[in-house]
Amino acid sequence: MKIGIYGYGNLGKGVEYAVMQNPDMELFGVFTRRDPATVHILTEGGKVFPADDVTKYKEDIDVLIICGGSATDLPTMTPALAADFNVIDSFDTHADIPTHFARVDAAAKTSGHTALISCGWDPGMFSLNRLYANAILPQGKDYTFWGKGVSQGHSDAIRRIEGVADARQYTCPVEAAVEAVRRGEQPELSTREKHTRLCYVVAKPGADTARIEQEIKTMPKYFSDYDTTVHFISQEELDAEHKGIPHGGCVIRTGQTGGGQTHVIEYSLKLDSNPEFTASVLAAYARAVYRLNKRGDTGCKTVFDIAPAELSAQSPEELRAHML
Amino acid sequence: MKIGIYGYGNLGKGVEYAVMQNPDMELFGVFTRRDPATVHILTEGGKVFPADDVTKYKEDIDVLIICGGSATDLPTMTPALAADFNVIDSFDTHADIPTHFARVDAAAKTSGHTALISCGWDPGMFSLNRLYANAILPQGKDYTFWGKGVSQGHSDAIRRIEGVADARQYTCPVEAAVEAVRRGEQPELSTREKHTRLCYVVAKPGADTARIEQEIKTMPKYFSDYDTTVHFISQEELDAEHKGIPHGGCVIRTGQTGGGQTHVIEYSLKLDSNPEFTASVLAAYARAVYRLNKRGDTGCKTVFDIAPAELSAQSPEELRAHML
Repeated sequence: MKIGIYGYGNLGKGVEYAVMQNPDMELFGVFTRRDPATVHILTEGGKVFPADDVTKYKEDIDVLIICGGSATDLPTMTPALAADFNVIDSFDTHADIPTHFARVDAAAKTSGHTALISCGWDPGMFSLNRLYANAILPQGKDYTFWGKGVSQGHSDAIRRIEGVADARQYTCPVEAAVEAVRRGEQPELSTREKHTRLCYVVAKPGADTARIEQEIKTMPKYFSDYDTTVHFISQEELDAEHKGIPHGGCVIRTGQTGGGQTHVIEYSLKLDSNPEFTASVLAAYARAVYRLNKRGDTGCKTVFDIAPAELSAQSPEELRAHML
Repeated sequence: MKIGIYGYGNLGKGVEYAVMQNPDMELFGVFTRRDPATVHILTEGGKVFPADDVTKYKEDIDVLIICGGSATDLPTMTPALAADFNVIDSFDTHADIPTHFARVDAAAKTSGHTALISCGWDPGMFSLNRLYANAILPQGKDYTFWGKGVSQGHSDAIRRIEGVADARQYTCPVEAAVEAVRRGEQPELSTREKHTRLCYVVAKPGADTARIEQEIKTMPKYFSDYDTTVHFISQEELDAEHKGIPHGGCVIRTGQTGGGQTHVIEYSLKLDSNPEFTASVLAAYARAVYRLNKRGDTGCKTVFDIAPAELSAQSPEELRAHML
């Protein structure tokens, strides 16, 4: 199947890597809003096209993987591109999913294409595990912990403070809370009791670090509800120690069955690279989107609607024989 | 939807508990090979019928959950009952799944029913997680660890030794191996390096405990490939400390994505009651079987073929709004 990558940041590059790992997939090309001549991709002989030209290739691409941001790109990109392509995105603004779904569904149904939104690990694999665990244990309690991992949004928020040259923020789960949940105790946990925030900040020369630290710790929504630690370090140290984009976390549901027995279901991820892992999930679901469209199953889907076998390159017979 | 339970041991009782926890399900009745007058079930006013009469009620039952053993019951029961019912079983002899599938599929397709086999946690939820993780990380390595949990088969094997009055065997994962896998080291592990076996044995009065211990530790297939520890205890201690049926384990896949980044995906279960949890999985999948049959999707399925949303009592809209 021929894959198009629309947008070539960290996520798009991750999709390109993922396509290389899947022998049944082939990169048709990368579409970028930058000047294609300035964009060098990893695939030998791989093509780069201007984003505006994408519809010229609508007969050549089986699935277009849209690697844009949820804030401003995807709400317009995904419905627009679903008019001409089978598409998949990683839209992650949880509260706006129903609206995004309705718009993409309308576009895909009209054009006879298949779309899948909000794919990745949260939303995505974490959502799936919440659903499975809730269906199995109707009487129970859900917990999601994130980290230790880099939050791009929180890092950006720190960088906007006056006197800050660079910053990296890690979201960390409170281990004692995770352990209590794993023991099946079903604690009630406040925001502060679930996660802490760890910030590495490079101050500009002469900047007032005490004021910067205070501004970070009191920033509403981002930091004020958390126990936040701020370390001032040099740009060299930040570049050497904090340039990766690791992330992860866990979804835990604990519940009781009739005989008063407690069960703990946990799904956890430890990811060296958040975008490369997200991209790998997108590639697997691109296979499903391709198959569904071949069968005439059009409109917008989410990970909840896709049977697991659709993700695998193996046949149903192979899966039953070797993986069940 | 009306559920029939065919077989009323620990698993059947667990299904009965699970039906009580799901407001959209109702117990039609329990079918037993014992004298129905001697079988007392948990559901107030619940009915118990002779197993031989089950086809009399084929119009009254939406899904029949077959709670028999994999060795001798299910290979004949499930295909036979699929002639008259939508059925679900927990067939767990991994090597025989393709044969069992073919026979159940033929019966269900002929009769226009929907069947689902090999449901539970392994095969079942563990299989699903192997599939998802393999699809996401095509370059990687799988590990499954079981325990700490009671193995009924190994406990039975010890009880067959002369001089043994009672026994309980726990399968335990080797924690150092699990930790190495979680660090992404992808070790090659022998059988002995993955699990140990812990046995609590009640010897009959005057029995030669040294000989019993030797017979256990050298028993082929069951114990000789493992580091096995044997403790002789009293019947009172066994009854007080070891009458539960806990189990669990974890499925871990570690793999690399293109940029040389390592990712660890882990799904783990800690279960106070193996049969009650398995039963809860069966109940959730019974909902899916019911829905598929209503849509005319007949024949035999496995957990690989079922879209996650089919397991949930919530609507697709609710799931997208609250669980994605």
